[in-house]
Amino acid sequence: MKLYDLDVSGNCYKVRLLCALLDVPVELISVDFLAGAHKRSPLIDLNVFGQLPVLDDGEVILRDSQAILVYIARKVGSEAWLPTDAPSLALVTQWLMVAENEIARGPNDARLHDKFGYKLDVVKARENARRILTIMDEHLETREWLAIDRPTVADIACMPYVALGWEGGVPLDPYPAVAAWVERIKKLPRFIPMPGL
Amino acid sequence: MKLYDLDVSGNCYKVRLLCALLDVPVELISVDFLAGAHKRSPLIDLNVFGQLPVLDDGEVILRDSQAILVYIARKVGSEAWLPTDAPSLALVTQWLMVAENEIARGPNDARLHDKFGYKLDVVKARENARRILTIMDEHLETREWLAIDRPTVADIACMPYVALGWEGGVPLDPYPAVAAWVERIKKLPRFIPMPGL
Repeated sequence: MKLYDLDVSGNCYKVRLLCALLDVPVELISVDFLAGAHKRSPLIDLNVFGQLPVLDDGEVILRDSQAILVYIARKVGSEAWLPTDAPSLALVTQWLMVAENEIARGPNDARLHDKFGYKLDVVKARENARRILTIMDEHLETREWLAIDRPTVADIACMPYVALGWEGGVPLDPYPAVAAWVERIKKLPRFIPMPGL
Repeated sequence: MKLYDLDVSGNCYKVRLLCALLDVPVELISVDFLAGAHKRSPLIDLNVFGQLPVLDDGEVILRDSQAILVYIARKVGSEAWLPTDAPSLALVTQWLMVAENEIARGPNDARLHDKFGYKLDVVKARENARRILTIMDEHLETREWLAIDRPTVADIACMPYVALGWEGGVPLDPYPAVAAWVERIKKLPRFIPMPGL
């Protein structure tokens, strides 16, 4: 598997992290994001959305970090990181959607503004961040993992931008259960970090 | 299964539509959205996000329309509407994410502004809508269905707000392949409509 990658991207990191946890080799191809290489051939031909990461596994080309996590978990990890019985798969999917929606429009947007200069409504992004972090903190007060009773791709999908929130003015101090959950993920065997985390 | 429902919500309609296509009985509980019933007990206790739909299947309570589709497809439909081999599940997931992200921030937001008076950047919403519809139109020029070679929950998740886009100033005339795909879904056995569609 080849991963078109950017070291400071939390979405790319999710994929690197799952590969590390599963002990799966992946060839990292660093993309010159600042030069806009993801918006031009050959990358735009692999992903018309013009975003990273992109996974190239021969006949299967995938975009969207959540979908890539699902692919790798199903291909390599059997049921361990993505159980497919109806309730478990749905509970994991709920949190994959939170990664795609509330976390993206919250701590991720705030970081894009502060760290990378994106023009967006950072006040709204921080409000969104506080809202989802409050929900997650209450949820994690009585649970170790987001979706079910063990770590899944839901945790991998949601953690990076939550843990990187401090780079967008959203530190985790007011959310002790969330902070403890991040530390729990950091203690998983074969965990790898990323810049800022 | 009980569905806390709103007739004009495309997210609720997705769930009603999948149940109809699968010929699964579901008890619809109409929620007084204008009175804010989804923000108060007892509904807020079922879904802390304060959004519709919510599915109550006894021991399993679910939020997020995409996650609910996944649940019902897995519980009732075996592999038909949600295949679980790694490539197929990942390809379906890619489009569930488009429903949660690009379509929500595109035609759905434009409709929320025009039809329901939501205060949001409708110019940006229409730009987002044109961007994702252009991608979908090119994608569907050579395919009948979004994810794989048969209809899946990906099509059910993405169709409603695309087909309702005209209520937000985003008609489908410039996207003939998308319009043909909507018509294809409308011809599925046991298809049911919703207001505006």
